[in-house]
Amino acid sequence: AGQDIATKGNYSNKIFADFSVFKGKAALSMSPVSPRFSKLNSGDFKVDKTGCMMLNFWPAVGQRKYDWQKRQLFALSPTELGSLISLGPNDSCEFFHDPSMKSSNAGQVRKSLSVTPLADGSGYFLNLTVVNNNLKTNERFSVPVTKAEFAVMRTAFSFVLPHIMGWDRVTSQLPTNTDQ
Amino acid sequence: AGQDIATKGNYSNKIFADFSVFKGKAALSMSPVSPRFSKLNSGDFKVDKTGCMMLNFWPAVGQRKYDWQKRQLFALSPTELGSLISLGPNDSCEFFHDPSMKSSNAGQVRKSLSVTPLADGSGYFLNLTVVNNNLKTNERFSVPVTKAEFAVMRTAFSFVLPHIMGWDRVTSQLPTNTDQ
Amino acid sequence: AGQDIATKGNYSNKIFADFSVFKGKAALSMSPVSPRFSKLNSGDFKVDKTGCMMLNFWPAVGQRKYDWQKRQLFALSPTELGSLISLGPNDSCEFFHDPSMKSSNAGQVRKSLSVTPLADGSGYFLNLTVVNNNLKTNERFSVPVTKAEFAVMRTAFSFVLPHIMGWDRVTSQLPTNTDQ
Amino acid sequence: AGQDIATKGNYSNKIFADFSVFKGKAALSMSPVSPRFSKLNSGDFKVDKTGCMMLNFWPAVGQRKYDWQKRQLFALSPTELGSLISLGPNDSCEFFHDPSMKSSNAGQVRKSLSVTPLADGSGYFLNLTVVNNNLKTNERFSVPVTKAEFAVMRTAFSFVLPHIMGWDRVTSQLPTNTDQ
Repeated sequence: AGQDIATKGNYSNKIFADFSVFKGKAALSMSPVSPRFSKLNSGDFKVDKTGCMMLNFWPAVGQRKYDWQKRQLFALSPTELGSLISLGPNDSCEFFHDPSMKSSNAGQVRKSLSVTPLADGSGYFLNLTVVNNNLKTNERFSVPVTKAEFAVMRTAFSFVLPHIMGWDRVTSQLPTNTDQ
Repeated sequence: AGQDIATKGNYSNKIFADFSVFKGKAALSMSPVSPRFSKLNSGDFKVDKTGCMMLNFWPAVGQRKYDWQKRQLFALSPTELGSLISLGPNDSCEFFHDPSMKSSNAGQVRKSLSVTPLADGSGYFLNLTVVNNNLKTNERFSVPVTKAEFAVMRTAFSFVLPHIMGWDRVTSQLPTNTDQ
Repeated sequence: AGQDIATKGNYSNKIFADFSVFKGKAALSMSPVSPRFSKLNSGDFKVDKTGCMMLNFWPAVGQRKYDWQKRQLFALSPTELGSLISLGPNDSCEFFHDPSMKSSNAGQVRKSLSVTPLADGSGYFLNLTVVNNNLKTNERFSVPVTKAEFAVMRTAFSFVLPHIMGWDRVTSQLPTNTDQ
Repeated sequence: AGQDIATKGNYSNKIFADFSVFKGKAALSMSPVSPRFSKLNSGDFKVDKTGCMMLNFWPAVGQRKYDWQKRQLFALSPTELGSLISLGPNDSCEFFHDPSMKSSNAGQVRKSLSVTPLADGSGYFLNLTVVNNNLKTNERFSVPVTKAEFAVMRTAFSFVLPHIMGWDRVTSQLPTNTDQ
């Protein structure tokens, strides 16, 4: 059944895999982004930039048609993943991002993601709002997520969390022999 | 104790491993199916077909005898696994599959899998119904699963979920050095 | 700090690692045992013998002294691990083993392991009883396990479960390219 | 995007990755430390020293400024990680360490780490106290941890636990073929 591709841990090319849900007004896809490492003078490596869970929201433009060109990104940090993973059935949470934080463009674009329980307890509403003061635009994406879909997110986010922190690399280092 | 076989992640042959339960009227075996990847023009890879958890039900035909020739398949998607993993002790769920969906044979065979709690809270009933309008057949498989067996399923399904989504491949890609 | 030993997944020698608790009347150590595979005519492999979690109980023979020569084994199956992993704070469970089951010596030695909650809710009692009708002996090992120690067991057993089922090998197989 | 660094499981250099929280009076960083193995006469390996989760506390010395030179370490054992992982929302726990235990300096330095729920149920307080009878010093570090940050710790500590026990090495050993 087809040609073998590179073995686990030996890819020289990128692998793309996402989890997507398509709903009435918008679609949402999620995929993990690995951390980046920098080399120290000692030859050792340290995490230079923590990974994240990248969310893409894009709007419905017709029956089962969605416009990928109009997508908006929202990158979840490890602590924001921790917030989602530990969310109780009646809990809600909200995250605020400024893509230009600490630059001269700070405050021009503001993004917020809120996660609120559905009224009948059957899942959560994910709402992304993107306010762009330059373009005078205010976009809003609403994606209801079922309990089953949220269970996929919770389980997959829990799997991904140690990876985007770089801890899977730390624990897979060569063990050393204490005899010498 | 025997000859070594290929190392983890380096198999050129297939590995078969299932978890099976044998009950009075039928048996049920489960095994994970990996996703398939396609190569992009860039040389990168993307998930072409998500993996699944394959369930096989086959009927008892005597005391501790089961007829594998009469087995029926049911492939659980990531979201259906999410539903099972998050099932509360008194919850139930049901999935409907049409093996010929989107083809000219759509509707000829209908499969449904229901998971319902046992009356005494000691586990769940898994019921598979397969209605074949062509053959005029209506098969039904009933397998009670204990709380301990369901805990194996929940734990092993949670382990498998990121793999059938392809996320274990994404997170095991080579990290890159940001210095260059 | 010492000489490197073989990389993960490339050992030609065995690795020993256990989790042990030492209590007033007995000690208990636990370590995972991998499954065994057999080669099919096709060149593929299947799980021939499921792995297990091996428990060793051995008695105290003085202040902080334990006699390893008098140890008794109890091998937990995947379903028995499922039972332990899903044990509620007030639940108990009991497993019965006959090391000579299905042989002519069946019934000569009977082992039972019971796990019962401590009266103050601070953990569990693990009791192993080994009755040997040949030697006319009746041994009993009692090991109280704290909530924290049981959390280590629950977490580590959950990690080990897919491995002793062989599912980590299935999911680490080479993905294939669907283009061909 | 940069130069590839060594593949997973093949590092000859060290990898550093921690999870850190910076609060008003002190900062806290955490990173896993792998176990050490010793070689047996048989050529096999056994865990010689269990790994740990290393906590570093260091004090604030101004607005968002922290003094790393004044840091104090606290190494969590597998059972202490089990205690943290299983902590209920209203539970608390406390660990006592003597860095010179079993040496002639025993009792000169005493460290204690307590974890107590915040009054409003929004997380936990981590308090480290280090009393040094030689230097006549008594240091105290207080770090409030939000529910989301504690969820990161719980998830990442659960991932790390089998690794610091050495069980990931045991389960990644070569499977053997039972035919021979």
